[in-house]
Amino acid sequence: MKKHMMKPAVAQLAHAELFTPKMDETLWFFKDVLGMYQVAREGQSVYLKAYEDFYHHSLKLTKADQPGLGHVAWRTSSKEVLEETAKHLEKIGLGEGWTDGDLGHGPAYQFNTPDGHPSEILWEIDYYEADEKERSAMRSRSQKRPLRGVPVRRLDHINLLSKDVEKHQKFLQESLDFNLRELKLGEREKQIGAWLSVSNLVHEIGIMQDGRSNEDIGPRLHHLAFWYGYPQNLFDLADVCVDHDIEIEMGPGKHGATQSYFLYVFEPGGNRIELFGDTGYLIFDPDWETIVWDVSNKEDLEKSSIWFGPRLEDTFYNYGTPNE
Amino acid sequence: MKKHMMKPAVAQLAHAELFTPKMDETLWFFKDVLGMYQVAREGQSVYLKAYEDFYHHSLKLTKADQPGLGHVAWRTSSKEVLEETAKHLEKIGLGEGWTDGDLGHGPAYQFNTPDGHPSEILWEIDYYEADEKERSAMRSRSQKRPLRGVPVRRLDHINLLSKDVEKHQKFLQESLDFNLRELKLGEREKQIGAWLSVSNLVHEIGIMQDGRSNEDIGPRLHHLAFWYGYPQNLFDLADVCVDHDIEIEMGPGKHGATQSYFLYVFEPGGNRIELFGDTGYLIFDPDWETIVWDVSNKEDLEKSSIWFGPRLEDTFYNYGTPNE
Amino acid sequence: MKKHMMKPAVAQLAHAELFTPKMDETLWFFKDVLGMYQVAREGQSVYLKAYEDFYHHSLKLTKADQPGLGHVAWRTSSKEVLEETAKHLEKIGLGEGWTDGDLGHGPAYQFNTPDGHPSEILWEIDYYEADEKERSAMRSRSQKRPLRGVPVRRLDHINLLSKDVEKHQKFLQESLDFNLRELKLGEREKQIGAWLSVSNLVHEIGIMQDGRSNEDIGPRLHHLAFWYGYPQNLFDLADVCVDHDIEIEMGPGKHGATQSYFLYVFEPGGNRIELFGDTGYLIFDPDWETIVWDVSNKEDLEKSSIWFGPRLEDTFYNYGTPNE
Amino acid sequence: MKKHMMKPAVAQLAHAELFTPKMDETLWFFKDVLGMYQVAREGQSVYLKAYEDFYHHSLKLTKADQPGLGHVAWRTSSKEVLEETAKHLEKIGLGEGWTDGDLGHGPAYQFNTPDGHPSEILWEIDYYEADEKERSAMRSRSQKRPLRGVPVRRLDHINLLSKDVEKHQKFLQESLDFNLRELKLGEREKQIGAWLSVSNLVHEIGIMQDGRSNEDIGPRLHHLAFWYGYPQNLFDLADVCVDHDIEIEMGPGKHGATQSYFLYVFEPGGNRIELFGDTGYLIFDPDWETIVWDVSNKEDLEKSSIWFGPRLEDTFYNYGTPNE
Repeated sequence: MKKHMMKPAVAQLAHAELFTPKMDETLWFFKDVLGMYQVAREGQSVYLKAYEDFYHHSLKLTKADQPGLGHVAWRTSSKEVLEETAKHLEKIGLGEGWTDGDLGHGPAYQFNTPDGHPSEILWEIDYYEADEKERSAMRSRSQKRPLRGVPVRRLDHINLLSKDVEKHQKFLQESLDFNLRELKLGEREKQIGAWLSVSNLVHEIGIMQDGRSNEDIGPRLHHLAFWYGYPQNLFDLADVCVDHDIEIEMGPGKHGATQSYFLYVFEPGGNRIELFGDTGYLIFDPDWETIVWDVSNKEDLEKSSIWFGPRLEDTFYNYGTPNE
Repeated sequence: MKKHMMKPAVAQLAHAELFTPKMDETLWFFKDVLGMYQVAREGQSVYLKAYEDFYHHSLKLTKADQPGLGHVAWRTSSKEVLEETAKHLEKIGLGEGWTDGDLGHGPAYQFNTPDGHPSEILWEIDYYEADEKERSAMRSRSQKRPLRGVPVRRLDHINLLSKDVEKHQKFLQESLDFNLRELKLGEREKQIGAWLSVSNLVHEIGIMQDGRSNEDIGPRLHHLAFWYGYPQNLFDLADVCVDHDIEIEMGPGKHGATQSYFLYVFEPGGNRIELFGDTGYLIFDPDWETIVWDVSNKEDLEKSSIWFGPRLEDTFYNYGTPNE
Repeated sequence: MKKHMMKPAVAQLAHAELFTPKMDETLWFFKDVLGMYQVAREGQSVYLKAYEDFYHHSLKLTKADQPGLGHVAWRTSSKEVLEETAKHLEKIGLGEGWTDGDLGHGPAYQFNTPDGHPSEILWEIDYYEADEKERSAMRSRSQKRPLRGVPVRRLDHINLLSKDVEKHQKFLQESLDFNLRELKLGEREKQIGAWLSVSNLVHEIGIMQDGRSNEDIGPRLHHLAFWYGYPQNLFDLADVCVDHDIEIEMGPGKHGATQSYFLYVFEPGGNRIELFGDTGYLIFDPDWETIVWDVSNKEDLEKSSIWFGPRLEDTFYNYGTPNE
Repeated sequence: MKKHMMKPAVAQLAHAELFTPKMDETLWFFKDVLGMYQVAREGQSVYLKAYEDFYHHSLKLTKADQPGLGHVAWRTSSKEVLEETAKHLEKIGLGEGWTDGDLGHGPAYQFNTPDGHPSEILWEIDYYEADEKERSAMRSRSQKRPLRGVPVRRLDHINLLSKDVEKHQKFLQESLDFNLRELKLGEREKQIGAWLSVSNLVHEIGIMQDGRSNEDIGPRLHHLAFWYGYPQNLFDLADVCVDHDIEIEMGPGKHGATQSYFLYVFEPGGNRIELFGDTGYLIFDPDWETIVWDVSNKEDLEKSSIWFGPRLEDTFYNYGTPNE
């Protein structure tokens, strides 16, 4: 039957690059607290992966004056789709051109989101090859579970702040084949939050209205999320964070939108990191109708944001990186 | 971009029908212990759903002399794909013809797996509409979380016993567009277990060698699985099962293959039911290479079967329904 | 060796009586949501127990105009100690006299705390005897784990609001042999919270400064707590509460003082109920030095109150029952 | 009231000394896998504590040819009780005499159990004083939660193998003031397992019939147990153990006797270590009647041993240290 199958432009979130003004402390956080493995260091950058990430790295940390998003990288569904998508992006004026790639992956086509978030698509990618000592007998695990911190299992999703959620999410649908899974509408039905996926997840990417949209600021990162799959691990990590002076913004708790168990912390460099304690829910319906939350009043806003757990923090809508 | 996208034949597991010789006890198990809602009763059948199943039902129970699989129903990716797939199945000689449908769904094309397991594909389906009283403010939840038992959230996957795993799984790949995610090879590389999915799950369907393949028995069910997402709920349910005389076969524990946290119990009618305590791991790699376990010796067999937890029970490979 | 052993006046929290202006809704909450068993109904009162409470009942609900504490009952260490303690209470002027007892227990000596909370001590008590059908094979469990709600396991502790914490807790130490485990000091070292136990728990009783001490109000209940022992059950219950319109005040989260995983909800009658998700920590040191938190500034107040989780709610210090 | 209170001989389990033929590997296990802190090293011994142990150490590891119990140390209720108890032990012929103490504690009176397990009682003990860097803001926590392994919180209990359970447990009751909480009777009502405590725990000490009682072997250790309080941590640790080649004997699962969530592993030196995933249940009843399990047939034996989880392993009754 497969003769009739073709693929979406984007297949998955491959990795993200975060800027940090405090490389040592940021590295300590990701390695010693979140238990990630360092796989390479080159120039001002360090490459990391979680023990169930399959590729060379899922996180690149680069020294910079301000925290923020270096870039986000999406793997396409095939080499052909990479080329088609690059042409499309060039045509609509968001393309930046090809690079030869980076440690861990081949040629990448760089582009900007409508808000200007640096992005790239790529196909060729290196699988992480564990040496004998760190190889797991679990064949779906690329490395042994580490003995450091409360170790995250894999990169999960990214959330970007936008000055125009509707425009941004439509670009993701139309140019990269994402599906719109959940949507928040504010006053006069203005889109203020959108959750999109190319998978059965509710989102590999979330787009939220930047609380400082009326200011002269550039594209900002809301958060990058790593996955545990177990709510107790959020409790374990929260306990660790308090003891080790890592600032918790909010959580543990459960979102209404996406149904996910969340914990938001700030890594020492200033970027917000979400830890994901379950898988929320999964979408298998091929005819999924976008869930719409009407958050034009505060009660509805909070119910969709916080199903239960903490109160909604003001910073949640105003703080992004860079935050100067 | 979406111009180039087409869809796999099968999109998801829609529902399953189980036979039970003890309808009252089986209903008690699914309703009072697993917290499922009864949505309809017609003739010798009762229709049930979990509180996060979106459709009319995910489980149909039908009175019969022996436990076993009534049929398994797959939803296709579209109406067109349904028709194409029906033609294909007819052509390869496994088709049984169209029915007008059943409570909760439209026309279905019936077919048999290579082993003879009764199956159907369908497109038109009724979404469950909760009345005011049982409607949840959680928009991704079709009903309120019930106050009965340790309530499962949704149907997850099915596992069938086969006399020829290789043949069966190739049919699933070639005719229904499943992807082969994990594979167990026994003596002389004979395929003895296969896990396939059309989603990011490791499996919506597992196929395992029937331990009684050399006997004159028909196609058998290994188990039907419902999802919790939280390992603690397996402990909660196991505790409930011991107190309420529901036989636990094995677990809680963690499989090597699929990485899932499992608990296997026998519902009073005799069918093996798996409760799924997490989501194992998810596959996003568009170029996934099937994981192969070589279980030609007992040690490897057990490691892939039981990462940790209980010892492997003999019944696990020999008991299926019907089991006369 | 036992020749030299004698016992503390109070051995344990036996039961509590709560007033409710909405008996039907309150009963629904304790029976259908918290999974308690109803053991008797007499006059305006209903008697309940959790499935791992050993005695006739741990909770008595009585219809009244306002929510609040009917009385709290402590079991003494022996019959002799009951009599001695009754004499002592009479002597210090807090005694109210003997009653013949109530359903489930023998003679009780009634007294008031220094704040006036109705209390009693008793020795003779009826063990719950499950009939064949609800008897558990688990010999340390007085009934089968129920198939309703997210069932609590046993009564844990009580927390009373006081106009004079120091006086109240000293009474508990001096007259009832409680040990002072943790203490919060406010401005000018005024005692504003005290946690005391006669067991290895950090507290069977907490005493907190009533936020409305300067008003002309009587003795009030802060909360009554039931025990799960598993943090996931707090998540399960919080989810249930949101779906079934039960108001959550705060949590799940972890207290600094007592280290307990908490969830505070209001039962429909208005009383605050705590659900206890672990056992915090236990005290085995025979020479325990009271832990003192200096909460004379807001930051310290919050850290001891909320180790992680929700923000501290104002209601937490101001709301008690009755709350008119 | 406290005039009439006196104390039991033993107040708590203070520490245990384990022998190990593989000091480096054993240290790796307790420090890197169980997250314990090393507090001192002297001669052939290393002293360790968990982050919520309050005293100088809870575990002393000493190099030896065979694994096994170096000694178990109990803290008495007071200095006076220490002296009285020492005299009593001397009188009944089990006393070995006084020592000046060891790192972390003052004078100790050494004695042997009726089976010959080296033991001591002591009163003066050093509290662990964390330096600035490792001090926790949680005042009931003696050190910050470590970033290594799946960190245990405190020492919980010890389990000794005996050639005469009845004699051994009666000694514990009569000479050290333990209470008999649960008991297993085998053929002809022979006592084959006993769980005793001086606290609200079901046991600080378990005594089980040595499966090799008819052999010419000395007193043996069954296991030493450390506490998590969270069942998920047992899953986390089991996962770690499989990846890092630490042998799991049995679990995770739930015992019938004591109701505890267990995981049994062998530390690299050969001693069996239990990880305790909850607190089972607590006993507050001052008039507790010993729970008796009749395990004279295999079914009852297994139900009390395994409420749910793994099958009972033969090693569980036959393996102890030393095991030569």
